[in-house]
Amino acid sequence: MKLAIINPNSTESMTKKCEEVALKFKNPDTQIWASNPSNSPKSIEGHFDEVKSLMGLMDEIKKAKEWGAEAYVVACFDDPGLEAARELVDGPVIGICEAAMHMTSIISSSFSVVTTLNRSVPIIEELSHKYGMDKFCRKVRAADIPVLALEDGTCNAMEKIENEILKAVKEDNCEAIILGCAGMADLTIELSKRCNIPVVDGVLCAIKMAESMVGAKLQTSKINAYAYPIEK
Amino acid sequence: MKLAIINPNSTESMTKKCEEVALKFKNPDTQIWASNPSNSPKSIEGHFDEVKSLMGLMDEIKKAKEWGAEAYVVACFDDPGLEAARELVDGPVIGICEAAMHMTSIISSSFSVVTTLNRSVPIIEELSHKYGMDKFCRKVRAADIPVLALEDGTCNAMEKIENEILKAVKEDNCEAIILGCAGMADLTIELSKRCNIPVVDGVLCAIKMAESMVGAKLQTSKINAYAYPIEK
Amino acid sequence: MKLAIINPNSTESMTKKCEEVALKFKNPDTQIWASNPSNSPKSIEGHFDEVKSLMGLMDEIKKAKEWGAEAYVVACFDDPGLEAARELVDGPVIGICEAAMHMTSIISSSFSVVTTLNRSVPIIEELSHKYGMDKFCRKVRAADIPVLALEDGTCNAMEKIENEILKAVKEDNCEAIILGCAGMADLTIELSKRCNIPVVDGVLCAIKMAESMVGAKLQTSKINAYAYPIEK
Amino acid sequence: MKLAIINPNSTESMTKKCEEVALKFKNPDTQIWASNPSNSPKSIEGHFDEVKSLMGLMDEIKKAKEWGAEAYVVACFDDPGLEAARELVDGPVIGICEAAMHMTSIISSSFSVVTTLNRSVPIIEELSHKYGMDKFCRKVRAADIPVLALEDGTCNAMEKIENEILKAVKEDNCEAIILGCAGMADLTIELSKRCNIPVVDGVLCAIKMAESMVGAKLQTSKINAYAYPIEK
Amino acid sequence: MKLAIINPNSTESMTKKCEEVALKFKNPDTQIWASNPSNSPKSIEGHFDEVKSLMGLMDEIKKAKEWGAEAYVVACFDDPGLEAARELVDGPVIGICEAAMHMTSIISSSFSVVTTLNRSVPIIEELSHKYGMDKFCRKVRAADIPVLALEDGTCNAMEKIENEILKAVKEDNCEAIILGCAGMADLTIELSKRCNIPVVDGVLCAIKMAESMVGAKLQTSKINAYAYPIEK
Amino acid sequence: MKLAIINPNSTESMTKKCEEVALKFKNPDTQIWASNPSNSPKSIEGHFDEVKSLMGLMDEIKKAKEWGAEAYVVACFDDPGLEAARELVDGPVIGICEAAMHMTSIISSSFSVVTTLNRSVPIIEELSHKYGMDKFCRKVRAADIPVLALEDGTCNAMEKIENEILKAVKEDNCEAIILGCAGMADLTIELSKRCNIPVVDGVLCAIKMAESMVGAKLQTSKINAYAYPIEK
Repeated sequence: MKLAIINPNSTESMTKKCEEVALKFKNPDTQIWASNPSNSPKSIEGHFDEVKSLMGLMDEIKKAKEWGAEAYVVACFDDPGLEAARELVDGPVIGICEAAMHMTSIISSSFSVVTTLNRSVPIIEELSHKYGMDKFCRKVRAADIPVLALEDGTCNAMEKIENEILKAVKEDNCEAIILGCAGMADLTIELSKRCNIPVVDGVLCAIKMAESMVGAKLQTSKINAYAYPIEK
Repeated sequence: MKLAIINPNSTESMTKKCEEVALKFKNPDTQIWASNPSNSPKSIEGHFDEVKSLMGLMDEIKKAKEWGAEAYVVACFDDPGLEAARELVDGPVIGICEAAMHMTSIISSSFSVVTTLNRSVPIIEELSHKYGMDKFCRKVRAADIPVLALEDGTCNAMEKIENEILKAVKEDNCEAIILGCAGMADLTIELSKRCNIPVVDGVLCAIKMAESMVGAKLQTSKINAYAYPIEK
Repeated sequence: MKLAIINPNSTESMTKKCEEVALKFKNPDTQIWASNPSNSPKSIEGHFDEVKSLMGLMDEIKKAKEWGAEAYVVACFDDPGLEAARELVDGPVIGICEAAMHMTSIISSSFSVVTTLNRSVPIIEELSHKYGMDKFCRKVRAADIPVLALEDGTCNAMEKIENEILKAVKEDNCEAIILGCAGMADLTIELSKRCNIPVVDGVLCAIKMAESMVGAKLQTSKINAYAYPIEK
Repeated sequence: MKLAIINPNSTESMTKKCEEVALKFKNPDTQIWASNPSNSPKSIEGHFDEVKSLMGLMDEIKKAKEWGAEAYVVACFDDPGLEAARELVDGPVIGICEAAMHMTSIISSSFSVVTTLNRSVPIIEELSHKYGMDKFCRKVRAADIPVLALEDGTCNAMEKIENEILKAVKEDNCEAIILGCAGMADLTIELSKRCNIPVVDGVLCAIKMAESMVGAKLQTSKINAYAYPIEK
Repeated sequence: MKLAIINPNSTESMTKKCEEVALKFKNPDTQIWASNPSNSPKSIEGHFDEVKSLMGLMDEIKKAKEWGAEAYVVACFDDPGLEAARELVDGPVIGICEAAMHMTSIISSSFSVVTTLNRSVPIIEELSHKYGMDKFCRKVRAADIPVLALEDGTCNAMEKIENEILKAVKEDNCEAIILGCAGMADLTIELSKRCNIPVVDGVLCAIKMAESMVGAKLQTSKINAYAYPIEK
Repeated sequence: MKLAIINPNSTESMTKKCEEVALKFKNPDTQIWASNPSNSPKSIEGHFDEVKSLMGLMDEIKKAKEWGAEAYVVACFDDPGLEAARELVDGPVIGICEAAMHMTSIISSSFSVVTTLNRSVPIIEELSHKYGMDKFCRKVRAADIPVLALEDGTCNAMEKIENEILKAVKEDNCEAIILGCAGMADLTIELSKRCNIPVVDGVLCAIKMAESMVGAKLQTSKINAYAYPIEK
């Protein structure tokens, strides 16, 4: 199958990181397309950054469709543009927050999310509400790390996230942790070991969810919400 | 006070219609700015149309801010881009669905919404969920009218909407009706008379809500969710 | 327009305080009626005090209607008797908790409430639930101040409330504060400055909401919930 | 034990009907006090009628307390004044809607309510929301019967209610019916037979619930919500 | 009336404790059957223990039915097998968590639960969700006591539970405490005194609720959810 | 990877049907174990049937674990015993209702479920509530088909289900259909074509979800809810 992974920001090292996760964990017969818009913000930190990334993201979705993509992962934890993308294509479109929350609700009775900045907390809380996951999501926490600091290694990301996870374990009565940023994908295994709790990466969840939904012959419903755009 | 009303689609007759509502019902000392992007879709029917309208909408928000706007109404019932717009400015940013639902919950114990097309129903249901209004919103209904048909008068809009309202009254046990499209603003009074139930127009609600929030010295909180965008 | 503000307790200095807010912030053409029952409790601290205030409140609503009121603000944060008052009149009837919560949900993604006594906390929590605002209301807190102490200045109200707001900012991850008592209306601006977070006063919100709803030609629906009382 | 049953309206035949239910179904050692205010409305149909009944209801609660009541049933399906009454006394105060909903949720996975007039429907829906029973309450329906017509036998109450129950069975997918008016208490058994579904009367439920709560040594918590009124 | 109390674990001293509660607080004409399966786990600590107890519990339900039971209490706070038991019999089947939550919601506006082990916390949270009691249940807490330690007195149960209750009072803003294990039934009165807050025991609540439901002639609905099992 | 599929009823033809789905749609390197208890009911229609199947189901889980299973699908739409099974093993345990609801919420904004008998409707409604899927699940419907009639072909299953799906499409405003019984797995494609709406089979969803979760290295959290059973 052909799987497109689109990082909606324009930082190529983050796209690479997602592609590496995909190449490492994909099924043997899965072909990976990984891309990002060139004209979107360097990182998505807040609603306006999201808006600025959307048209570029849509263009990448269309390119991936032409390539023959059968499923699409949007690799930003704010899950920007999912619904609009679903209108453009038949194959499933999956957000990394969405995939992580659904899957984690199957391996634990509750989880907390650790994201980058405080301003992303209400965005992720709203996603939890939208996906029906409020019952499982104990708390969304920020480790106070700018997204790009995850890339340039200037901020002791591992330690800060570890500290926040340990606080979550102590205060939230949660049974798993979801990392709330695509840029944290490479820290999952180490953090899981250090903190002795399942630590879940949305990028990986979404990639595997995409493969499984294509395998299950599921396609986006074209009735109402995700019908093709009307030509004007 | 200075009030900006931005129609996110590019159909100027709809912008005019909103401006007329504003000029008719505004406070004497309110100055109105009404505009629309020139590069957005002719109508917003679905998520992808929303996405295509967003950058143009943001540009109009910025222009209105330079003009000195103290509050901003986004005049499309899908309430596109509210959160992003809130990051850009200090004055309140108000959606017409949002304003209509809040105000109608004060004059009735429940309401139904009548919108244009079926594909807009799940979008408005999601807004109701997001605003905490599920308890008041009995049902979102579509009268099967393309948005632009409201402008060109080709579709017996009045009759179709009247029929759907009468169905709502009979089947939904609702006490008020909200019209789910900015383009229906001019039908409110006539429909209210014909159907013998309060019929609420979101454009008017949002305009008055904007004036009242400025009058109450309320400004968008800059803590977390709607903090100014980070420069990159 | 003619706006009635009714303080359901019998402490005239609180009625005056509300009237002053109204006179300061009202639209130029708004006429204000401010009154309170003479036979209700000095302050409303709990459900039984509410009950004791209700018939007096209803009488004031009727008097205001005869005066020609087009909208009615009930100026007690427990929002007593709103539904019954709505049965008596056509113009909108607005509670100060209700107005504050709706408006604050537009300028922030979440808020906490700071009220007077612990016994009022569950009352306000129930209002939040009733208005669909649980999603926005992080926590209801009490500053441990008897209502009348706000009037006689014996309790360091400003400091106590400031402390509780600062605790809310630190612990609740909220983006705005609502003051949970009509008697706190005069502290809003100072507290907002001291605490560096939007502080919202329900009296002012309700007054402006009332003007805007009359301006939007909204009247209480007479279908079912708020139909006129049946003569017996 | 000593059990007070207070009908908040002033129609003595309804008080008698409740007393008869009590005398027929009470435990042998239960003493019954049944009363109603003399100055309240003849029937409670809407929020304003509720308000008019409240002070009389409170007075009866106080009299019953002096009599030595250990529990209190408020015998009107709108459950007026429960919280205020709880402040006045130590013994449990139980509403008939409340008791019926809690008990019916134990014998069925869902129920519908059949009440008198349409205007009472949103009141009961709000109670369901307040008690956490929305999950069990499929629909609140009105049989279009004025409360007093239940007393004077002028309206074919039995047939109308039967018809509405049969509609509920067919349309609501419910497993039990709650009768939504104290005045329907004498119709329960006959309706249950005719409609082949459990039909539940709140008066009886509340009486037995009261006995059981006294038997379980449960008393109203005096922390916060139901603390004694503050003397002024 | 004839009341069956079934302890689903096989520790007879716990069955005895429940029987003692019943004998002490039952109505004079109530006959008590108290039993436990012989082949179930010694204590129920988690979902798998529940599963292991279920067939034995069903057998006891059937035996009690033959004895002539008119109501059934399942005396384990995880409320195992309630729905299945309801299919087998006509008389009401009542869980001790269920009874405690319903009754406590009538005497307080909120409660916390103190149970034995952390692993039981999510089970009780799920019950709260299932019964519609999330609105009332502030927090489920564990005192870190194995169930059987309540029996053998090796763990300072009273002190540990007292400490947890005092934490709940301080941190949860709750107005009552429910003890989350049948084995705590004998500690209720002492804890209530020590902690100055109503402390509620589910065993006692369920026993009295059972008597009252039989007294109210309520029987399990045989429509859909709890219809008799289909013979195969 | 090694995947166990356990049909909790004892009808081998249904186990075979599930196995065929697995063999047809699995990844090349997935090994399938399909089994059922020999001592459970022929079909699971209601809560008591569920209870009777549980110990056999647990035994199969244990056997599959010895075989080396890395994930477990419980192939009955009532999702019996999931939580208990999760305590026994490390690999993910997935219910077919659970998998279908999560995946369908990604390809549509709402769905209805079509199951066999009315008595299963409240069971599935409860699952929807438990999984946080109430927001997506419009209605659970029964086609009035005994489970085993799906096997012996005596009941025009295809037509009955088709009719119910068409009703759902017309009345529920849903965008996808989930088939609510493992025995319907072979009808999916045909029904999807006939009804022109995505029709989703939980067996297939769960199998692919299991593969993807193993691929994503997700294992059941052993903190609290799903910790290993305590030895006694």
